[in-house]
Amino acid sequence: MSTATFSDWMRTIQARTETALSAALPPLDVLPDRLHEAMRYAVLEGGKRVRPLLAHGAGRVTGAEAAIVDRVACAVELIHAYSLVHDDMPCMDDDSLRRGKPTVHVEYDDATALLVGDALQSLAFQQLAEPDLLPDAARQLKMVEHLAIASGSRGMAGGQAIDLQSVGQSISREALEIMHIHKTGALIRASVQLGALCGPEQDPTVLARLDQFSKRIGLLFQVVDDILDCEADTATLGKTAGKDARNDKPTYVTLLGMDEARRLAAELEADAMDAIGDLDARADMLRALAAYIVRRRF
Amino acid sequence: MSTATFSDWMRTIQARTETALSAALPPLDVLPDRLHEAMRYAVLEGGKRVRPLLAHGAGRVTGAEAAIVDRVACAVELIHAYSLVHDDMPCMDDDSLRRGKPTVHVEYDDATALLVGDALQSLAFQQLAEPDLLPDAARQLKMVEHLAIASGSRGMAGGQAIDLQSVGQSISREALEIMHIHKTGALIRASVQLGALCGPEQDPTVLARLDQFSKRIGLLFQVVDDILDCEADTATLGKTAGKDARNDKPTYVTLLGMDEARRLAAELEADAMDAIGDLDARADMLRALAAYIVRRRF
Repeated sequence: MSTATFSDWMRTIQARTETALSAALPPLDVLPDRLHEAMRYAVLEGGKRVRPLLAHGAGRVTGAEAAIVDRVACAVELIHAYSLVHDDMPCMDDDSLRRGKPTVHVEYDDATALLVGDALQSLAFQQLAEPDLLPDAARQLKMVEHLAIASGSRGMAGGQAIDLQSVGQSISREALEIMHIHKTGALIRASVQLGALCGPEQDPTVLARLDQFSKRIGLLFQVVDDILDCEADTATLGKTAGKDARNDKPTYVTLLGMDEARRLAAELEADAMDAIGDLDARADMLRALAAYIVRRRF
Repeated sequence: MSTATFSDWMRTIQARTETALSAALPPLDVLPDRLHEAMRYAVLEGGKRVRPLLAHGAGRVTGAEAAIVDRVACAVELIHAYSLVHDDMPCMDDDSLRRGKPTVHVEYDDATALLVGDALQSLAFQQLAEPDLLPDAARQLKMVEHLAIASGSRGMAGGQAIDLQSVGQSISREALEIMHIHKTGALIRASVQLGALCGPEQDPTVLARLDQFSKRIGLLFQVVDDILDCEADTATLGKTAGKDARNDKPTYVTLLGMDEARRLAAELEADAMDAIGDLDARADMLRALAAYIVRRRF
């Protein structure tokens, strides 16, 4: 598959995700209008939409209709967006820049940021509850269950809690991995699971391979993030660069050094490719996505 | 039905709700243990469990098994508990006392309180996604949809946003009602809807009557809350008394005066009773519950 084909696919998915998110978010003229404005500010026109891309990539493998995957892509992206809004708040990372724009609590206020995050989480689950999204309601319920677990205290929110406790601590590579499996890994895994659940072909072997792929991609994504955070300047990154080091947070780079972190990224990429090596050409977008995640800047 | 029968039923439901919540919450020995401890602190041993009581009361009317309603009761109570944790935070109401104990951000810290609320919301949706909770998965999905809408920007979180904007404003009785329909009414309505959905008897006429009942109970609950907040001292209430007036928030008492607020409460109680007047004796617990809500202190 050519790079151009992947780039076209990526742009198509990003565009349709934007459309779907805009339709899922309450319009500006519905009360409470300031909250709805802030929710749209937090979600729209931002980010690479990596989780929606993963959902659509996995949906292709199980023969899903893109219109169904759109709904799932919105759900995971809304959870991701809510986590960024809360993560940026003064009581957490206290960050003022995100995706090149002032963060929600800076542009609005802390209370609004809190409610924006809360309401985005509810909206994510609402996406998955649409009647007749799938012919099989039990499969839809499984999506709700996966997303709830991935978002909660044993998933993303739990990872944030571990992260908070690790500030200023010297932790092992294993402990760092456990944190990231929760903090970013769980939602990336859920993105692939939910995308795959959209299609009619539910072959357990294929689903298991996709799951292995997603777990490696989750870690890979974090290792690359740590490398970028250390290397990039604020303009390239669209968020405050170097903040992890400044906040005295352990990262793969501070723990392993830059060379070893890059080696780890290459190894995880190879492992991820290997996990879906047996799948047919419909998995090509996931393969290209793994390569894209590694090379998003370096 | 005697008052003793209702009191026994209420204590039974409160006890089984406590057991169900404790089982639904992650145990203390699961990582991240501090977050799980704080989640249990926020939820257990607190509150009258009005929403679980409403769910069980509605479940009786549609012939539901109490074990199924327990799950739904947990879901609505977890949403309620998360909203209290976030509502008490410094950027919102900045309250230090709740149910007679220090609030979560005081007992732990702001970041933990934020994550506790986030994780409790996810856990609420997880309750409704349990495979085979109901024989009909589509009905379970409807529960997820009702709860998501009731919690989100067009429900509870939206009500909080309207509340924030109304501080220091002089608002009309209609505007106050719109705020409360969102802020507390939506989740009370969902408690009745979800409880009713647990049973095999899904008669649309009965469901419509329960829905009317729940909407009136929602407002009634808020009017009584305003009266209590104005009258009670902190010890009786278990939370800081008089804070709404101090925070310059509009209440039914400040807007209508105490006598008129009491008259409104009596009227709403009569309307709520009227809505379920045609239902058989299985609705008696809901009737007693309406009376209990009005008389919880005065």
